[in-house]
Amino acid sequence: CSVLSMDNTGYCNDSFNSIRSSTSDEDMVEIAGSTLDFSNTEDVPPLDRDYGSGKTKAHVSVNGVPKLMDLLDEPVPGVGTYEDFNTIDWVREKSKDRDRHREITSKSKESTWALVNSVCDAFSGWLLMLLIGLMSGALAGGIDISAHWMTDLKEGVCLNGFWFNHEHCCWTSNETTFQERDKCPQWKSWAELIIGATEGPFAYIMNYLMYVCWALLFSFLAVTLVRAFAPYACGSGIPEIKTILSGFIIRGYLGKWTLVIKTITLVLAVSSGLSLGKEGPLVHVACCCGNILCHLFTKYRKNEAKRREVLSAAAAVGVSVAFGAPIGGVLFSLEEVSYYFPLKTLWRSFFAALVAAFTLRSINPFGNSRLVLFYVEFHTPWHLLELIPFILLGIFGGIWGAFFIRANIAWCRRRKTTWLGHYPVLEVLVVTAVTAVVAFPNSYTRTSTSELISELFNDCGLLDSSKLCNYDNANVTKSSNELPDRPAGNDVYTAMWQLSLALVFKMLITVVTFGMKVPSGLFIPSMLAYYHHDWAIFRGWCSPGADCITPGLYAMVGAAACLGGVTRMTVSLVVIMFELTGGLEYIVPLMAAAMTSKWVADAIGREGIYEAHIRLNGYPFLEAKEEFSHKTLAMDVMRPRRSDLPLSVVTQDGMTVEDVETMITDTTYSGFPVVVSHESQRLVGFVLRRDLTISIDNARQRQDGIVSTSRVFFTEYTPPQPPNSPPPLKLRGIMDLSPFTVTDHTAMDIVVDIFRKLGLRQCLITHNGRLLGIITKKDILKHVAQIANRDPDSILFN
Amino acid sequence: CSVLSMDNTGYCNDSFNSIRSSTSDEDMVEIAGSTLDFSNTEDVPPLDRDYGSGKTKAHVSVNGVPKLMDLLDEPVPGVGTYEDFNTIDWVREKSKDRDRHREITSKSKESTWALVNSVCDAFSGWLLMLLIGLMSGALAGGIDISAHWMTDLKEGVCLNGFWFNHEHCCWTSNETTFQERDKCPQWKSWAELIIGATEGPFAYIMNYLMYVCWALLFSFLAVTLVRAFAPYACGSGIPEIKTILSGFIIRGYLGKWTLVIKTITLVLAVSSGLSLGKEGPLVHVACCCGNILCHLFTKYRKNEAKRREVLSAAAAVGVSVAFGAPIGGVLFSLEEVSYYFPLKTLWRSFFAALVAAFTLRSINPFGNSRLVLFYVEFHTPWHLLELIPFILLGIFGGIWGAFFIRANIAWCRRRKTTWLGHYPVLEVLVVTAVTAVVAFPNSYTRTSTSELISELFNDCGLLDSSKLCNYDNANVTKSSNELPDRPAGNDVYTAMWQLSLALVFKMLITVVTFGMKVPSGLFIPSMLAYYHHDWAIFRGWCSPGADCITPGLYAMVGAAACLGGVTRMTVSLVVIMFELTGGLEYIVPLMAAAMTSKWVADAIGREGIYEAHIRLNGYPFLEAKEEFSHKTLAMDVMRPRRSDLPLSVVTQDGMTVEDVETMITDTTYSGFPVVVSHESQRLVGFVLRRDLTISIDNARQRQDGIVSTSRVFFTEYTPPQPPNSPPPLKLRGIMDLSPFTVTDHTAMDIVVDIFRKLGLRQCLITHNGRLLGIITKKDILKHVAQIANRDPDSILFN
Repeated sequence: CSVLSMDNTGYCNDSFNSIRSSTSDEDMVEIAGSTLDFSNTEDVPPLDRDYGSGKTKAHVSVNGVPKLMDLLDEPVPGVGTYEDFNTIDWVREKSKDRDRHREITSKSKESTWALVNSVCDAFSGWLLMLLIGLMSGALAGGIDISAHWMTDLKEGVCLNGFWFNHEHCCWTSNETTFQERDKCPQWKSWAELIIGATEGPFAYIMNYLMYVCWALLFSFLAVTLVRAFAPYACGSGIPEIKTILSGFIIRGYLGKWTLVIKTITLVLAVSSGLSLGKEGPLVHVACCCGNILCHLFTKYRKNEAKRREVLSAAAAVGVSVAFGAPIGGVLFSLEEVSYYFPLKTLWRSFFAALVAAFTLRSINPFGNSRLVLFYVEFHTPWHLLELIPFILLGIFGGIWGAFFIRANIAWCRRRKTTWLGHYPVLEVLVVTAVTAVVAFPNSYTRTSTSELISELFNDCGLLDSSKLCNYDNANVTKSSNELPDRPAGNDVYTAMWQLSLALVFKMLITVVTFGMKVPSGLFIPSMLAYYHHDWAIFRGWCSPGADCITPGLYAMVGAAACLGGVTRMTVSLVVIMFELTGGLEYIVPLMAAAMTSKWVADAIGREGIYEAHIRLNGYPFLEAKEEFSHKTLAMDVMRPRRSDLPLSVVTQDGMTVEDVETMITDTTYSGFPVVVSHESQRLVGFVLRRDLTISIDNARQRQDGIVSTSRVFFTEYTPPQPPNSPPPLKLRGIMDLSPFTVTDHTAMDIVVDIFRKLGLRQCLITHNGRLLGIITKKDILKHVAQIANRDPDSILFN
Repeated sequence: CSVLSMDNTGYCNDSFNSIRSSTSDEDMVEIAGSTLDFSNTEDVPPLDRDYGSGKTKAHVSVNGVPKLMDLLDEPVPGVGTYEDFNTIDWVREKSKDRDRHREITSKSKESTWALVNSVCDAFSGWLLMLLIGLMSGALAGGIDISAHWMTDLKEGVCLNGFWFNHEHCCWTSNETTFQERDKCPQWKSWAELIIGATEGPFAYIMNYLMYVCWALLFSFLAVTLVRAFAPYACGSGIPEIKTILSGFIIRGYLGKWTLVIKTITLVLAVSSGLSLGKEGPLVHVACCCGNILCHLFTKYRKNEAKRREVLSAAAAVGVSVAFGAPIGGVLFSLEEVSYYFPLKTLWRSFFAALVAAFTLRSINPFGNSRLVLFYVEFHTPWHLLELIPFILLGIFGGIWGAFFIRANIAWCRRRKTTWLGHYPVLEVLVVTAVTAVVAFPNSYTRTSTSELISELFNDCGLLDSSKLCNYDNANVTKSSNELPDRPAGNDVYTAMWQLSLALVFKMLITVVTFGMKVPSGLFIPSMLAYYHHDWAIFRGWCSPGADCITPGLYAMVGAAACLGGVTRMTVSLVVIMFELTGGLEYIVPLMAAAMTSKWVADAIGREGIYEAHIRLNGYPFLEAKEEFSHKTLAMDVMRPRRSDLPLSVVTQDGMTVEDVETMITDTTYSGFPVVVSHESQRLVGFVLRRDLTISIDNARQRQDGIVSTSRVFFTEYTPPQPPNSPPPLKLRGIMDLSPFTVTDHTAMDIVVDIFRKLGLRQCLITHNGRLLGIITKKDILKHVAQIANRDPDSILFN
């Protein structure tokens, strides 16, 4: 079973919490009951014109009152829906939505109420975006505030109220001075509180112990909650969201339980000090919001394609709140996660992303009124010559990214195949313990990652208490502005050592952490990883000198290079970094580094981290970025192969119910072509296995006289039956009358292009007008895997 | 003739300057001579696998030396190319490129030289982008500098050297003070120079006269140059570029003559004071650069689809240099002009746009070192309540946009149909004269539009000499910073009057100007149009008060609203405005206005200005933004209709050369389906009229024994011919073996989707495996026009 086979990947153990994201059976009846009106279409005969949807014949209505209809023509509940872990048919879904839209538009001319309804329908998309923006912004604000508080809780507690974090606690204090903002009597470290000592080895050990204990507690809670309530809440979520957006169905992956548990455990995981970021999970959280809010609007609840448009926008919202970068978020969604991204979605995503960023700003979790997270205050121009170190940074970032992906995938594969996978809780606890034990002594790893980044991105100010800025202040009066001319103090060298250690440690631990059974993101850790290094190098080279180099800029560029190497993002990365820091001047250095990094990483290994994880889990994802460049023809890929049994087809009028049922039980195909006759093999249409099973079962239960010997007809008109024969079963309604076909001589690159661009599930192959075979999405993925010398059976789902 | 029918639209009079942008005959032979190597493909028989390209059979090579080949198998020159004013087949072009790429990749394993070649090929795209960026940036810089100088020339001349513009002239002067930067003895107005007076009515009249004369001279030169050397250089160019990018061929539209003449006349037209901007033409100029530079690289020279990817990037470059907005440029290309925009192009466009912006900045035509054109210095936060006026601005902008489009289209239609079109030079001169005469007395219309915009966008400073900032300075000491508290001086009210007049005048004259036979752009005039108005309103309401409103912000928002109404851009507009002004804080107001403006304008009239012009000229452009929402089926649109003659088909083995030639002369179709036999109507392939004509002519000339009675074969194997019969003509090589087919029951919305997404030219219609008819892009466009109650014959080209 495909669900079981996923178990080891750690993504789904059971589906008790599945939110039926697709149309439920009852809903289906409801649509079906509504009537179509042809009164103002052209003089075309009212044939059945629904492209394979659940609706069969057009029901002519007179003054809005439906006529009595033949029972046989009523759509069967469940026809036109999808099973879990299957791929949707984009063409059918979009066509269904256009039908719905057309119906509303034509009705709107009849009455004022219908007109209002139609206007509401048109604006529902915008309203939905507004709601997603507000909800995601509010949730992100909540997550930021809680994570900040819990991170500080590891070190101490506020006496004024345990719900204050360190900074907030000292704000309310009057006794604090500007220089020592972080020190105030109300804030007690655990050692101070328990044994009453602030200095000395005992206090240090006490603090150390409490730090590790809190970290273990948080991570234990996180992993337990995930395992108990929402197995889908683990990991970054971006690989799965990419797959879902490409048309795959994973019920419950974006459900309300996942949302609740992911929000809570994300806070816990970040607070526990594990080397993970909240950015990927925030995308998942935003997509959950999007999916849940979709249920408020029929238009989006009932259509898988429309819902995916909303989810694309929600992904943009996620990045927007994670970094305060609305434009970058939209580009991220466009470049990295989305599959079908029409212009309308572009505009709506931008709106939602802005609303979310604005909401987050109003909540103001970062304590300043800026829209950007790490506002850089320097605006020093850079020199053209500096492009060389930037490109070097890019090369390093690319190598690191490729190494990271390999190591992480190797580790995840190990987790899937060995005993390691059976003890997820233990694994998390051990990693947390190691992280906490190693992190505490080094002040750069002890603080939260985002604090560290903002420290590194900034230039040194005179009042800065950071060690990195500890230049020799003794001989300099306060009025001197010539900071870089002073000799570096000893602390700077200590800081450099600590940073280098922190870099190595973060690099190693992140490999292990990403993919564990807790919500985990990559962005911030990857951003961190590199620029310590360059700081160390360039600081050493330039610090005794003059104003020649802005270390914060190098940190920024290094961060971009590493992120680029890991995720292979390009434009969106540059735009996110630019929005993150507000430095319009530094687009060129950022781009130089991101570009080099991507090239270098691509030369070492083709895939980004998300694609690698998609492949690891065997999801049916047809990569849109890579060109299919092999010179095979459709006839080489299609089924049946020369040695196989002939294609299972249904004839339009020659089979009995029993024949069809036998065919269904004998085969596992998810659909069958309908032909005129076995001899001519001329194609009439395509019928899905699920629809066929549901319709026959339904007919056997509800329709009189349907027995195993009843003839099945897919023709428009049923010929008169001989007397004493059982009544025929008419199934033209469930047949897709416009299946996609290509000839056997079509080059596979064209076929792949058609699959990608139209979002097909299958395509029929003809030769000189005769049906020859079929190609499904899975066939293509297997073919691609085979060409790349990978195991074609690694593709698990349809 | 289609070329003649365009004459009246004013876009093409002759084509002497056509640069053969497509593959020339000689080139074709060259590719054809190269050999394919199948040594490392799978065990598939070497059938002819080229998707309808000129290359026929695979030529097996032994150690790189081609074997002697059958003369008949040699590709015929010209097969696979397109005629002027025709639409390309995207699928075929992309397939050709993949073949080429595959060949290079497989060769690269053979020798080091081939490997180097393959690497060069991979990087040629980036090199091309770099060149386009550099060239466009340099040209834009040159245009800016020249236009600035010539605009100033209308008012006076510099004694130090006539090549200095006003500002530059006074820089070199030592006698100028900071307050009066613009006044220095070296700069003489014409009156001063000719009659020696600076004041008084005579001097005024003298200046007035010279101003009008220069304007007339410039515009006369512009229109004459355009008419004499490059008729395609007129207009904005964006509608044509949109059409070209969607796959249409207009030879010479992006050629070197167009580039040269457009660059020169753009400077002349802008300097003449006509109400037009240089932004649209700069996009055209950048696209010309892109097209010309494509000729340096075989990969892009020989492939229409690849070339269009480059042109999409070039469009981004154009906007990037016009506004100094690289991100906005890329989004503009994505949202507004591009048809096929893969992610690879996104990244490359961004690179090219950055290079161009950087080059422009290095040339530094604006005299400051900022990347942005109108850098705003205010960063005052806005209040939530202010959203109401912003939305009102949006409504006004939308109404104005819709009105502008209607009025402009009505005027252009008048120009096409009445005597007006016969006197283009006179028209230009009259409009210039009116513009100059009305503009001179009002100081806001006299200066160039971009200067005016930067004045309006800025907040008043204490040292500002602008009239708008003339508050009552008398009672205030210089040290006071409380500018807004001072009462408004009389000049402010005068300025408001002048601005309102300027607004009305600009609005009217722009309608007439856009579409004349000189290069003209819309961006800047539209930006101008509105915000004078709001300035006037809000200034009156708020100026005696406090710091409540930033007038510059209103100007900015008003500009965005008007541009949004005219062009219907959304995200790209907001991003351009944001990059233009550098104000990260004002994204939300800008978006509110742009969104409202688009909604309001869409409610009044569906089309943006560019789409309206495309429709006016009858270009075959299939709009990707609008959903096709009518409930017709493929069978309702396809040809032949019920009353028509049956479809002209070619049988695969039953016709003689004479039959085929008769069919070609009797019909005007651009292609014919090939079927097994007239009785079965089973589809084999599709053959293009042009390819058929060329091949038969070629065979008659070069192949022995081909006469009118020779049989034509499209089959794989030619059956033995009876003795004494002429040799057969084998044409399988020119047949497209994988024509696209859909069933007659396919809904038209799906068909339109397929055409758009795959870039098809035609699609065949089948019913139960039999060929029934054909739908071409033109049929679809006619059908769309018919549904919208427009004249279907307005679509002029294939």
